[in-house]
Order: sequence, then C-alpha cells, then structure tokens
Amino acid sequence: MISLAVIGYGYWGPNLVRNFMQVDHAHIRAVCDASAERRAAAEKIYPGVITLADPTDVFADPEIDAVVIATPVGSHFELGMRALEAGKHVLIEKPIASSVAEAEALVAEADRRGLVLMVDHTFIYTSAVRKMHELVESGELGELYYYDSVRVNLGLFQSDVSVIWDLAVHDLSIMDRLFGASPCRVSATGMAHVPGEPVNIAYLTCSFVDTRIAHFHVNWLAPVKVRQTMLCGSEKMVVFDDIDMSEKVKVYDKGVVMSSSPQNTLQRHVGYRTGDMWAPRLDNVEALAVEAEHFVDCIINSKTPITDGHAGLRIVRILEAASASLGSNGAPVEL
Amino acid sequence: MISLAVIGYGYWGPNLVRNFMQVDHAHIRAVCDASAERRAAAEKIYPGVITLADPTDVFADPEIDAVVIATPVGSHFELGMRALEAGKHVLIEKPIASSVAEAEALVAEADRRGLVLMVDHTFIYTSAVRKMHELVESGELGELYYYDSVRVNLGLFQSDVSVIWDLAVHDLSIMDRLFGASPCRVSATGMAHVPGEPVNIAYLTCSFVDTRIAHFHVNWLAPVKVRQTMLCGSEKMVVFDDIDMSEKVKVYDKGVVMSSSPQNTLQRHVGYRTGDMWAPRLDNVEALAVEAEHFVDCIINSKTPITDGHAGLRIVRILEAASASLGSNGAPVEL
Amino acid sequence: MISLAVIGYGYWGPNLVRNFMQVDHAHIRAVCDASAERRAAAEKIYPGVITLADPTDVFADPEIDAVVIATPVGSHFELGMRALEAGKHVLIEKPIASSVAEAEALVAEADRRGLVLMVDHTFIYTSAVRKMHELVESGELGELYYYDSVRVNLGLFQSDVSVIWDLAVHDLSIMDRLFGASPCRVSATGMAHVPGEPVNIAYLTCSFVDTRIAHFHVNWLAPVKVRQTMLCGSEKMVVFDDIDMSEKVKVYDKGVVMSSSPQNTLQRHVGYRTGDMWAPRLDNVEALAVEAEHFVDCIINSKTPITDGHAGLRIVRILEAASASLGSNGAPVEL
Amino acid sequence: MISLAVIGYGYWGPNLVRNFMQVDHAHIRAVCDASAERRAAAEKIYPGVITLADPTDVFADPEIDAVVIATPVGSHFELGMRALEAGKHVLIEKPIASSVAEAEALVAEADRRGLVLMVDHTFIYTSAVRKMHELVESGELGELYYYDSVRVNLGLFQSDVSVIWDLAVHDLSIMDRLFGASPCRVSATGMAHVPGEPVNIAYLTCSFVDTRIAHFHVNWLAPVKVRQTMLCGSEKMVVFDDIDMSEKVKVYDKGVVMSSSPQNTLQRHVGYRTGDMWAPRLDNVEALAVEAEHFVDCIINSKTPITDGHAGLRIVRILEAASASLGSNGAPVEL
Repeated sequence: MISLAVIGYGYWGPNLVRNFMQVDHAHIRAVCDASAERRAAAEKIYPGVITLADPTDVFADPEIDAVVIATPVGSHFELGMRALEAGKHVLIEKPIASSVAEAEALVAEADRRGLVLMVDHTFIYTSAVRKMHELVESGELGELYYYDSVRVNLGLFQSDVSVIWDLAVHDLSIMDRLFGASPCRVSATGMAHVPGEPVNIAYLTCSFVDTRIAHFHVNWLAPVKVRQTMLCGSEKMVVFDDIDMSEKVKVYDKGVVMSSSPQNTLQRHVGYRTGDMWAPRLDNVEALAVEAEHFVDCIINSKTPITDGHAGLRIVRILEAASASLGSNGAPVEL
Repeated sequence: MISLAVIGYGYWGPNLVRNFMQVDHAHIRAVCDASAERRAAAEKIYPGVITLADPTDVFADPEIDAVVIATPVGSHFELGMRALEAGKHVLIEKPIASSVAEAEALVAEADRRGLVLMVDHTFIYTSAVRKMHELVESGELGELYYYDSVRVNLGLFQSDVSVIWDLAVHDLSIMDRLFGASPCRVSATGMAHVPGEPVNIAYLTCSFVDTRIAHFHVNWLAPVKVRQTMLCGSEKMVVFDDIDMSEKVKVYDKGVVMSSSPQNTLQRHVGYRTGDMWAPRLDNVEALAVEAEHFVDCIINSKTPITDGHAGLRIVRILEAASASLGSNGAPVEL
Repeated sequence: MISLAVIGYGYWGPNLVRNFMQVDHAHIRAVCDASAERRAAAEKIYPGVITLADPTDVFADPEIDAVVIATPVGSHFELGMRALEAGKHVLIEKPIASSVAEAEALVAEADRRGLVLMVDHTFIYTSAVRKMHELVESGELGELYYYDSVRVNLGLFQSDVSVIWDLAVHDLSIMDRLFGASPCRVSATGMAHVPGEPVNIAYLTCSFVDTRIAHFHVNWLAPVKVRQTMLCGSEKMVVFDDIDMSEKVKVYDKGVVMSSSPQNTLQRHVGYRTGDMWAPRLDNVEALAVEAEHFVDCIINSKTPITDGHAGLRIVRILEAASASLGSNGAPVEL
Repeated sequence: MISLAVIGYGYWGPNLVRNFMQVDHAHIRAVCDASAERRAAAEKIYPGVITLADPTDVFADPEIDAVVIATPVGSHFELGMRALEAGKHVLIEKPIASSVAEAEALVAEADRRGLVLMVDHTFIYTSAVRKMHELVESGELGELYYYDSVRVNLGLFQSDVSVIWDLAVHDLSIMDRLFGASPCRVSATGMAHVPGEPVNIAYLTCSFVDTRIAHFHVNWLAPVKVRQTMLCGSEKMVVFDDIDMSEKVKVYDKGVVMSSSPQNTLQRHVGYRTGDMWAPRLDNVEALAVEAEHFVDCIINSKTPITDGHAGLRIVRILEAASASLGSNGAPVEL
C-alpha cells in the first residue's frame, strides 16, 4: 500500500486527491495547504485524511511514500527537491519547473536516489492522445510530416506566466509524445496586448533534424474556443478536436501521390488521394485516473513513467527557448 | 466606353471576362491566349470578341484602353510593363509581380504615365471583407490587437511557387486592407515535405511598430478545409469563416476588462466581458463583379483603385521578406 | 423561513436539494427516501438535514411548510395529494401526474386549500427559454407560425413510460410557455422496436384553433444527439440549439414577403426576406436555482408559479391524448 | 445510337440536356419548349440540336427513340402518354404524374407496349444514396428500424403544389429505395401560413406491416437549411447530411443491447453499445450523369430501370394519401 500526500489543494489538487482515492494499493494519507479554508474543505469530504499547513511536516512523515505537488510553478523546484531529498517519490504538476536548470537538478536527484519522478502532463493519459499514439506507433500514418495545434479562447490571464507557459505546455507534451523526438530549433512570436500583463497570444515553431515541423498557436484573447490539432503523415492524417463531444479523433485516409511520366520526369505531378474517414471509439476513462494508477504502478513495480522527469525537462527546455526567441523578435534559438 | 483586352484565358481569365462583360461603360474587345484551344473556347461563348495569340497585338491595338493580365506570375512584370508603355491601364492578377523590384518598376511606370494600375486582390471586394472593413473604420472593434488566419486544405501543389506566394497573398491583402498599415518585421517558418517540390506548409508572423500582430497559416497538405480568420479588437472581435455558407462574418461583443482595487493596484485582475454575437447580412454580389466595375470607374473618373499598384507592392514586399525568413530558419527580416 | 422536505433522493433529488440549499428564506429540513444507502449519501453531504424513510413522517411534521416530490411518475399523485391534504405547498417533478384525472384532482385540491402547487418544468427556467419567451412577448417575432423540436439521442430506455412521457414533456412545456395556448387536436405516431419495451420513437403534432402548429420528434434510438427547436414567426425566426455551448439561441431576421402586381393579383409571388442573425448573450444561471427561488417566492408572497398545477395539467392532457392517438395508428384526438 | 428529345427547357431541362450529351450511344436530337427565348438559349449552346415549339413535332419524328419530359407536373401525364403512344421510351421528371390514376395509366401503357418508362428520382443515383443502399443490401445495418428525414429551408413557394409534392417526393423516393417496401398507412399534418398559398410545412408518417416507420419533415419556411436523414438499423445507424460537403454519409456502429439476468427475466435492461464511426469515401460523379446513362442502357439492353414507372407510381400513391390525410386533420389513410 503506497501512502501519498498531496501538497496544494487549490484548483487542481482536489482532482488529484479524488482520483488517487480510487487507486488500488494506494491511499491519500495527507493533504497539505497553507490555507485553513482549503484544509477544511478537504477535511469535510475526506474525514480520514490528515491535513497539514506546512510541507515540512509532509517531508518529515516517514509513513508517506510519495508526494504529489500541485502548487504554483514557482514552488515546484523547491518542494520537489525537498521531497526527493526526504526519499519520497514525486509527481509534479506541469510544467515540472520554471527553468531548465531546475528541471535538470530534479531529474538528476531522482536518478541518483532511484526515486520515481513524474510530471503531470495530463493530456498524455487521455483516451484521444493514447489513440493517436497507437496510430503513430502502428505505422498507419506513414512518415510524420507535421503537428499543428490551436488552443485559443477567452481565458483568464495568468498573472505570473505567459500564455506559452500556461497553455503551450499541453500541446508540447502531446507533440513530444507523438513525435518521440525533440526539436533542434525553436522560434516564437507573440504579443502582450494588456499593459503590464504577460504575453497573451503566441505562435511557436519547432524544427527537427528531419523534415518534421510542429507549430502551436496559444491565445487567451480569442472570441471562440478552439482546441484543434492536426497530425499529418504521408499515409494518413489525424484531426483531434477536443471540443467535439462525440468524435474527438478523426483519421483521414488522405495523402499525396506523385505521378511522373517515364519519358519526362520533369513533368511529374503532385496530386492527392482521398479515401474514407474513420472516427475510432475512445475509452470513456478520466485521464487523471489513468495517470494516478500509472504513478502508483511505477512506484510499486519500479517502472519508468511515460511522463517521467526527462519528459518534463524536454518540455521546459522548449518553453525556455521559446521565451528567449519571443524576447528577441522571433529569432530562432538552437537547442 | 472603355475597351478592354484580357491576356490569359486559363483558370481565372474566363471569370474576369464574364464579369467585365456585365460592366456598364465597358466592353471586352479582345481575349489573348497562346493556346488555340482556349481561344476557341472564348470564341464559342463570346462570338463578338477578337481572339489573339500574341500579346504584342494587344499592345499595338489603339482601340484598347485597358489590359487585364491573368497569366502565370512569372510573366506579370513583362506583360504589365509593356501594356503600360503602350499607354494602357492595367489590372494584374495577384501577386502583382514576382519581386519587389519588379513591382516597384510597375508602380513607378504607372505613376509616371498617369495610368491606372490595379492588382486583383479579389478578397478585398467580397462582401465579407467589405463588411469587416466597415466595422474597423467605424471604430466599433476598438483598438486592433491581432489578425490571425488559417487557410489550409488538401490542395494542388503549384510547381512554380511556394504555398506562401500561392495562398498567403490572399490573407496578406485582407490584413493590409483591415490594418491599413505595413509590418516592420516578418518572420516565417515552413517545410517542403515532397522532395523537389516547393514549401507546402508555412507560418508567417508580421510585427508592426505598435502592439498589433498578424499571423498566417497556409498549407496545401491538410486533411480538412479551413478558411478562418480572427480579427480581434479591444472592444469587439470578429470571426470570418469563409466556408460557412450562411454566416460568414460573426461579430462578438467580447473583450478584456481590467479591475483594480484602489488600495492595491498591484492586485488588479484581468477579466473578460462577454455579450451578444451578431452575424450581419452580407450582400450576395460576386466580388469580381464589384472589382471589375471599380477598375472601369477608376479609369473613367481618374480615381485611385482600392487595390492599386502600391497595394500590390506592399504585399510582394511581405512575400519577399517571408521567403527570405523561411530561407534562414525563421530569422526575422526587418522591413 | 420556509422549511422544505424533499421526497426522493435518486437521480434528480440531489440536484433539487443542492439548489434549495442556496435559496434565501428557505432551508431543507428533511430528505426522505426508502433507500438507506441514499439517505446515508444525503447525510454525508448535509449533516444538518433530517433523513426519513417514510413519507408519512414528512406529512406529519408540522415544521415542514413545503414538499418537493422527486419520485417515479407513478407515485406523484398519491404523494402530492397526501402532502396537500397535510397542508403543505407542493413542487412535483415533471410530469405532474400519470393521468389527466390525477392532475385535475391535484389542481382542485391545491386550489381548494389555497396552497402553492408547482410542477418542475425545468426548461421554463433556463436562460434560453426565458430569452425566447421575452422575444415572443415583445412581439419581435410577429405572428407565431410554428414550433418544431427534435430531441433525440442514444438514450436509456425507461422501463415504465414511453419516450413521449419521458422526453416530449420537456418540449411540450416549452411550447406551452411560448405559445400561451393549448392545442385543440393532437396526433401521434411512433413505434416500439424492442419487443416488450415501450415506444422508443414518436412524432407528435399539436394543432390549434388558429394557424399555429407544433411538432415534436422524440427518440431514444438515434446515432447522434440533437436538441434543436425552431420557433418561426411572421417577422423573425428563432433556432434554439441546446447542444451549442456558445450560442444556444439564434434569432434570424428572416421572413416571407408577398409581392403582387396591381394589374394581376393572381400572379402575386411569395418571396422571402433575409437579414442579420443575432445570438443574444444568455445568463449563466442554473435553471433549477431560478426555479427553487421562484417556488419559495410564490409561497412567501402568495404568488402563482409560472409552472403551476394548471401548466402541469395542460401538459398531461396533451401526453394522454398523444398516447391515445399513438394507440389508434395516429388518428387525431380532439381536446 | 439512341436519339433523344427533351421537352421542357426551363430550370431542370438544361441539366438533363447537358448530361445526356455526354452519354455514349446516345445523342440529343431535339429540344422542345414553347418559349422562343429558351429555344434560342438551347440553340446557342448546342448548334447541332433541332429546337421545336410543339411537342406534337417530337412525337411525330420517327428518328426520335426516347423522350425526356421536364415540364410542370400538371402536363406529365398527357405528354408522357402521347410519347408512349407514339412508341417512344419515356423519362419523366418527378413526380411522375399528379395522381395515382394517371401514374397507373402510364405504367400500364408502357408495360403494354414494352417501352421503358422511367421517373427522374435523381437522389437515387447520388453516390450518397447508392452507398446507403449498398449498406442496407449488405445487411451491415441489421434489421431496419426507421427512416427519418428533415428537408427544410427558406425556399421559394411553389404556386401549384404543396411542400409535400415539391420536397417530400425526394425523401419518399430515397426511403422507397432503401426500405424496398411500401407503407400500409400514411398520415400527414401541416399548415398553410400564407393566405391563398399551398401548405408550406408538413409532417408525414409512413407505417409498414412490420415495425418499420418512416417520417418526413418538409418545410419552405425555416430559418436554416437542413437536409438530414437518419436510417437506423438494429446493428448500425446511418446519418446522411446532404449539406456536409466533406462527409455526407456517416455510419455509426451503435445499437441496442439487451441484458437479462437468468433468474429474473422481468428485470432485463435495455442498454446500448457504441463503437467507431466511419464516413465512407463517396464517388464524385454527378447523379444525373449516372441516371442518364442508366436510361440509355435500359433502352439498349431492355432492362428495367431502378426508378421505373412502378417506382414513380409508388411515390405518387404515398403523396396522394398524404394529401388526403392532411385534408382530414391527420387521420391515417390505409393503402
């Protein structure tokens, strides 16, 4: 039985607690939050859980095997490092840390101690992304060409981070999972339209050593809500529309065909092929439930999480490069 | 009565001829195309029209007042310049020329001779863009924040030009019209996925001296057809969906609101306001009919076309800069 | 302070309790359900509330002013009548009773005792229907022509009632509110495709003494979910799409126009007029919260509920006639 | 080589001529229309075709093998009968005639003379309906449960026929093709909202000897255009959306499942099964081209057309019954 503590019971923490409560071979021992009101909320729903105000008490509790950190990004590194130093397995909300240096230190510490370090890239555990990963792995899409995502709506401005660190992290983690490769170059443009507030609209391009390309549009100031991703391969193309309640993932049997006359290879022609469309049925399982179970399974069976510390680090590396590019008018940053 | 000749009777030429046929105070005197088959097609529908194989005969005909050029981009400059030198008013299909130098020469020649030089940026004459321009001019949208367009589908590869010169020219011309300003910086990323073929997916960002930003996604290799533009202002936001047959332009009464407590200006909060949506009725007039009438009106009444040579030049300047940026991994190009 | 008891804590009861909990000048004194498990669920969330197994204890409690009945349809009459006889105000889930005779008896009893009798036609209190009612009342739609609704999806079969009593009751209550008139004739067709199960697809037509007409398609066996209503007037037409998350109500400035030449009135022509579309912003309030407040307000201030017993009776009258028509191959039933 | 004449060169005639022009082993010999203007229009495009003002000249021409009739409904019978009597094969626009008696007479005459009599139920030849027919025939859908279609928009009122004879004929012909069965009972409701004009909104139900049911909503006075059909079977369900440009036909692997505990068959439960969705690629062929070829093939090879006179008669029989039911307040009419 794995004993867990959740630090941070604000927006996301309650979802984590609720899902971990249902995992076999695990139980929530403690919930930690500086706010008395939030601790009371946790106590009301989960009378058996200890509530603590100070994370130090979490790290000091020898009964606790693993710590789940759902606090603002700025505190991820310190809390994560202290948890690892106390010998706890750690799951950190996305992004794993606020800089590459911090993320690298966390990864190194977890590796040194043989502890599980996992980042909460929730989308990776959705049935839609799992299905897309399955399609990529099966080779059905052919050679991958591009990843294009749009994540925009009229959303709350974050006071501490730009729209890139807030929203693009989702799409970067999906791209990282599906491409299984890290970009060699990142460029980003964007703008802060509200004086004194962070960048609210941004465009990122990731280039790779091969011909793959990935692009991300993230935006807090759009009149309509769009959550659409296109994943294009040489054989098939996928559209993932997260707003479509009935058919989130559509697979198009479409592609490019080359025709060239044997006499005159100069006059070859690029045409296209268009076949059926297919929307696979998706599991109706909550992503966080899958993820919580995976974390516990990794601890018990000494497995490496799909979204381990290295995955978290890869994304922070892109975010940091994108911020740098954004700061220099979109000049590409080599990785 | 203005006498016109149309050079080029391939894909677009027949549309031009058909529309000019219906303009008052104008008539099509000649259609010129090197292909005998195409000339025969024109003769069949319009028995009264002279058909010519060689543009030289067009330029030499003293009866012809104006020339409409609908040939491949590579020939725009030469044909346009010869027409101007022969004292003809000129309308050239988009883009006006294949380089800034060429476009500048055309503009200078037309100015020197006092001839009308117009570029066929058709979208400017659609009822949707005219309505959007009206909304911008009325001040209803407030301060403009950004222009974002997506123009993607499974389309025919052009053998001679990249997807930027083929598709982005449409959106750049709309942006130019609505912003009434030229970018100070352009960056572009993209990729050619089919060996030996031009770039088939590209992303452009235009920056301005103020906080406006414009972004363009153009793509010949997408599973679904998208033609969507967002124009966001401080007071209202517009979505222009060219695929929506019934409501192409939607105006959202949405925006950002700042709230700050008098005691603590640091704790101000960015929220948003959301009101009605409104889809104005659009005229059911063919854009090309409006444009043809405008060209004739400019000739007769010595007016400057909305899409004059300068407009054509401004777009070519962006296209050239975008191509340069694309060639240097997205490094921004100052204008 | 009005003291309430909720009888039935199954699917809908918890929603009622949650909403009444937030109404000023009212409190939930007791929750009654035969199931120990359900009572335990209520106790866990609301420690201050009395839980009872037997409705008799509810009726016997002199502290209780009003009773909310959320049990299966078959028990509405008996429980409602006993509550009224005990001098309690009553709110009954839809449909108010399982026959016209029962509904009439409830209405008569409430009238005789001067008690508030209300039926939970929840949709009447949604912001969408309230907006539509406002549009009708303002005269903006002109003379009403028809009401057409489609409510279909792959839904759970009810074991006790047909799809008409399960689903059409929603749309009939909306129509009743918007038309402010009762049909003079009802016909219905339908089919039970699963042997031994109730009718799963049905079509109802309501005719009125004037030229209005209302039609309802309800269906438990459809591949896609549709919740669409058209309300057509001589001046404007409304589409209410309950699945559209962003613009549920759209008002179309469209209509019929007659043109006739003075010489020949026989050759008059019916054309149409098409103008702007407008999607009014809707309140973001839960319908049940509005309804709960309204019930309490009616009790305290001796008002007649919008959805009073008579409204409940009118709907049951249509349902009963529809069932009769369905049983005689669609033969119209006069009311 | 089959020689054809087309009578009626108004709205639909030109489409028929254009398509028959491209059929192998056939040629259009004559176009007949009372209007000189229309004859001139035909002459301009097809200089080789004879134009005639009087149908008598068509019937008298021994060179003409077959006659295509595209005139108003009221003249179908007379022209069709005269053509048959002159020994011509006949294709008549939908509906085949304006009464059952007329349609029966045409069918009898064609049968007696061994001539091909075909009705232009165009939709039957669309790639969408052909694909749906293929799905039905393959048994993939299981036992058919219902056919439901909605065909509404803001359309032109026909001065001579009700919306049923104008629009429902399309959907009835599709249903007839897919069900392969004729209804035993028809009921219809509707209303004429514009004084002096025909019924503009109507609802038809067709019942069959088994549990199948078909329903049709046709409407000239709707704010939005809807062309949606659901075809539901025990194994799979199909949605045919004729407005969707990219995926007109969607096949849902959804259905009902029965579960019953062996101890208690009374407590069996109706649940449902939901699987993948699949949108088959459809041919990009014009329906009228397929139909024209089929007519010529039937003549040359003495085949029976898919939409023969009997099919035309079956639809008129339903239309006549529906009109009768409409005239008696929706009372069902037995067939």
